[in-house]
Amino acid sequence: MQQRTHTCGDLTLKDIGKQVCLNGWIKNWRDHGSLIFIDLRDRYGITQIVFNPEINKRAYDKARSLRTEYVISTTGVVQARPEGTVNKNLKTGEIEIIAQTLQILNKCKTPPFEISDNIEINEETKLQYRYLDLRRTSMQKNLLLRNHTYKLVRDYLHKLGFVEIETPILMKSTPEGARDFLVPSRNYKGRFYALPQSPQTYKQILMIAGFDRYYQIAKCFRDEDLRRDRQPEFTQIDIEMSFVNESDVMEIAQNLVKEIFIKIKNEDLGNKIPIIPFEQALKDYGTDKPDLRFDVKIHDLTSIFLNTNLAAFANEIRKGGIVAGISVEQSEYFTRKKIDHLIEYAKKLGAIGLIWYKIRDKELQGPTVKFHSQDEIVQLLAKFAGKEMRILFTMAGKSEKILPILGELRLHLAKELNLIDKNKTSLVWIIDFPMLEFDASENRFVARHHPFTAPQDRDMDLLEIEPEKVRARAYDLVLNGNEIAGGSIRIHNTDLQQKVFTMLNIAEEEAKQKFGFLLQALQYGAPPHGGIAFGFDRLIMILAGAKSIRDVIAFPKTASALSLMDGAPSAVSQTQMNELGISISNNK
Amino acid sequence: MQQRTHTCGDLTLKDIGKQVCLNGWIKNWRDHGSLIFIDLRDRYGITQIVFNPEINKRAYDKARSLRTEYVISTTGVVQARPEGTVNKNLKTGEIEIIAQTLQILNKCKTPPFEISDNIEINEETKLQYRYLDLRRTSMQKNLLLRNHTYKLVRDYLHKLGFVEIETPILMKSTPEGARDFLVPSRNYKGRFYALPQSPQTYKQILMIAGFDRYYQIAKCFRDEDLRRDRQPEFTQIDIEMSFVNESDVMEIAQNLVKEIFIKIKNEDLGNKIPIIPFEQALKDYGTDKPDLRFDVKIHDLTSIFLNTNLAAFANEIRKGGIVAGISVEQSEYFTRKKIDHLIEYAKKLGAIGLIWYKIRDKELQGPTVKFHSQDEIVQLLAKFAGKEMRILFTMAGKSEKILPILGELRLHLAKELNLIDKNKTSLVWIIDFPMLEFDASENRFVARHHPFTAPQDRDMDLLEIEPEKVRARAYDLVLNGNEIAGGSIRIHNTDLQQKVFTMLNIAEEEAKQKFGFLLQALQYGAPPHGGIAFGFDRLIMILAGAKSIRDVIAFPKTASALSLMDGAPSAVSQTQMNELGISISNNK
Repeated sequence: MQQRTHTCGDLTLKDIGKQVCLNGWIKNWRDHGSLIFIDLRDRYGITQIVFNPEINKRAYDKARSLRTEYVISTTGVVQARPEGTVNKNLKTGEIEIIAQTLQILNKCKTPPFEISDNIEINEETKLQYRYLDLRRTSMQKNLLLRNHTYKLVRDYLHKLGFVEIETPILMKSTPEGARDFLVPSRNYKGRFYALPQSPQTYKQILMIAGFDRYYQIAKCFRDEDLRRDRQPEFTQIDIEMSFVNESDVMEIAQNLVKEIFIKIKNEDLGNKIPIIPFEQALKDYGTDKPDLRFDVKIHDLTSIFLNTNLAAFANEIRKGGIVAGISVEQSEYFTRKKIDHLIEYAKKLGAIGLIWYKIRDKELQGPTVKFHSQDEIVQLLAKFAGKEMRILFTMAGKSEKILPILGELRLHLAKELNLIDKNKTSLVWIIDFPMLEFDASENRFVARHHPFTAPQDRDMDLLEIEPEKVRARAYDLVLNGNEIAGGSIRIHNTDLQQKVFTMLNIAEEEAKQKFGFLLQALQYGAPPHGGIAFGFDRLIMILAGAKSIRDVIAFPKTASALSLMDGAPSAVSQTQMNELGISISNNK
Repeated sequence: MQQRTHTCGDLTLKDIGKQVCLNGWIKNWRDHGSLIFIDLRDRYGITQIVFNPEINKRAYDKARSLRTEYVISTTGVVQARPEGTVNKNLKTGEIEIIAQTLQILNKCKTPPFEISDNIEINEETKLQYRYLDLRRTSMQKNLLLRNHTYKLVRDYLHKLGFVEIETPILMKSTPEGARDFLVPSRNYKGRFYALPQSPQTYKQILMIAGFDRYYQIAKCFRDEDLRRDRQPEFTQIDIEMSFVNESDVMEIAQNLVKEIFIKIKNEDLGNKIPIIPFEQALKDYGTDKPDLRFDVKIHDLTSIFLNTNLAAFANEIRKGGIVAGISVEQSEYFTRKKIDHLIEYAKKLGAIGLIWYKIRDKELQGPTVKFHSQDEIVQLLAKFAGKEMRILFTMAGKSEKILPILGELRLHLAKELNLIDKNKTSLVWIIDFPMLEFDASENRFVARHHPFTAPQDRDMDLLEIEPEKVRARAYDLVLNGNEIAGGSIRIHNTDLQQKVFTMLNIAEEEAKQKFGFLLQALQYGAPPHGGIAFGFDRLIMILAGAKSIRDVIAFPKTASALSLMDGAPSAVSQTQMNELGISISNNK
């Protein structure tokens, strides 16, 4: 093989006359009879190669056998492209190589799809032929962006004195929340390692060990059914700090995001990252992951309708519910048909119905207006006084039921009406999360964040009497409506940790068995500490403007955790299973 | 908690008079009655705190309850230490803090061992209380060195255009060589993922995908019995490049090591890294991992003794064996007793015996001299003419048997006689490895490197007729007698890959089932490519001067793959096993 002197993205007018050698893949070939043109591609760019039988007949003849995605090595001389054939879109678009020799390094079977961004490829085919899919410019860009971001993150944290420490992949199984991937032990038959759902306990141990500031870009694993674009293995930027409170961790985290946005997108996210308490976020946006790129909030209208005659409202208010709604600018958009569609959509989300009002020129329209008192109408109009003509969609019910539905509607309308400014970035902190959330499937309260999260000092008295009211020292960072990071100040005291385990219905025996090593470590001089973890795949997805995290992961798995390229998981030999002392059981 | 204004490694004479707050651990406390002195420690240093009842009686009283490893926050004023109490060994040794307030952030039970480098701690206790062990200065230094090296490696490779890409941890089981760790699949019961023994196939796929230069600091896994300081999970610097030959990869790799040595040890390894063919290394040093820090080689003495009367030599030569030996300077060291010990040691290594000669003043001494002809004696003396008085240890036998024994003896003598200059670094490339090595346990030839290694062009004709003579395009980098990196140019052609599988007795069906995806990928325009992988743990161990890789890994496992801190592997619930469709089998 003759080795390249340059890459396919290097050569420009300043190289005219140089003798060069390029290696790469045939992107296109055009046989013009007297001349053959090749677009030669590598990661760095595309360079045009011209084969002329008058320069080298052998090379020209060989070039006629070239096909898409063949790998070649070619030498030649750089010359300026003839007038009228310059391609301004390419860095190398002003030159071409007049080929002197050609060596075919490898052939390529006809690819199952064209290596181009302008085609729709079935996801399964893409994953099966991932090596071809990854040749596409968009995928190369995504993984190069990911590469760039690793570097930014590490440089930023290194500069601040964070120590990169690798934590084990083979750890102890302590399922709490999600399901563990298990690894049978050969030396201790009948016992298992687990793959980490996060390095949580290890990073706390590292704080107890005095490392002060730790980070790792860590692989994590959850054996869950892959709803919503998740992966069984995913990557997080994992950070932990000693002697800190919430604001210290939040500052480091938001500065990291700001650094990434400046360096990658040349966008300054500014110094005022809003901080919204969890309850407020639910009230205003129906979610703890609000997208603030558009200015629509949920309105609580209950006080207006306390004595209403509209049964749909009155009945719910009597049962302790609320009336709430969202309004957007009225336009020709909301035909009767569109409104009906929206009502159907709301019902799919679980709403009983949707009651709408058009507010124009101080006049209220809508099917239920006749049931409202003049006072109700006046108050409602007053609420939207001075605004453009609007449409208001309302519903009534228990707040925990209708607020999330209104939150979904809010996002739905933003998309429908194109309210989201794609050039804007919304970064917001959510704080004051409840410690607990009710897990309907297990019919018990579980830790919302994880069982090592510290309760807020002001709620300490409620721990044993009203645990569901205790707020956590937790914080989530939300980017354009996606939770990109979550963290907390941790418990650094054994007694409090034991109390919280009790609150979570983790019996003392169970706690000891699962987390005994942490409970013990807390007794040996644990410093106050806290941290945060970023979902790295999702962050890159947002930065890349990709639609799925599969597009920013080199070798992702399908929703059922299959690797279509190599066929994992696969059957293994009986010998392998015997060595591990396990067998396949028939019980379902 | 009052937060620190400085770390315990910050304050010096320039801070005199400042009001400061420090957080940290009590390293020592000395109650002088009228004053209490505390050495407060964190990752950054140690600062002396003085509690004086005349400054603050409450803080002083509280300070009396302080014990080793308590975590505190204290405020006070920086002052110069009184004359005669300055500690020049500490960066902060010229100042102390006159404490005004004291807050105990956490207590500490009496540690099972003192947090100090000057004590011998039982390995099991260290691992069980790893959070305390990691507080010791030497362990902190090791992990900070590791942190520093991650950064150097990444900066170096990033600068050269290498793209960091994460490859999956849940992959396909393709055991070839070592045993895979397996992960049962819940979605596909009876099927398994494997943890990667290395990202080998993925990095080749990435070359086929056109990424040109890839690297990753990757976790790898081997479920082997842990002889000789190995870990079930370990870290490698994984590198792959397209359109390269051996020298390109070797240059990148040795420059990386040189970069690390300059930056970490301020040592220039120079530009002449020796390259020794495998056969030559065996002949000269009895190993493919020669330590060149001392100038002792194995001498082949066969030609001298072709007609000898010494039966021990003659018999072996007749059977096709050789006579070889090593010589070191003679000194008072080699008493009859020492020589007997060495003979015992050689026998333990598998030698039949050891025949020795002392060469002094042109005179040959030794128990077998009487059996030698004058000619043999003259030739032997000529070989060592002009040298200091020496002792020569020889043995005879098949070269593949005795050379490794002499190699071990060579190292043993170097240690005994203190021949190794600890300030010297020996870096050497070994090349021209045979493709195959004989696996006695399986009674067949297996790939010495891995089945994707390309054979050398000059040996291509031998592939089918004398495969054991085929040399590989492989190279190992050896540092002070440790293999720190190994790599090869890979096969990029399906037919050749298939041929090599055949040579390795991997049947076509088996090859297809295990590596079908790679064989297929090679058909779609695979570029020539090659790479290398560094054993990162071992590299850090050498840089740190540590005795075991366990001392440079935050949470290592024992030789039987136990995690003594958290007890992994551990029993899991029946529910977990049912979900995975596996059960514990009783067959041994």
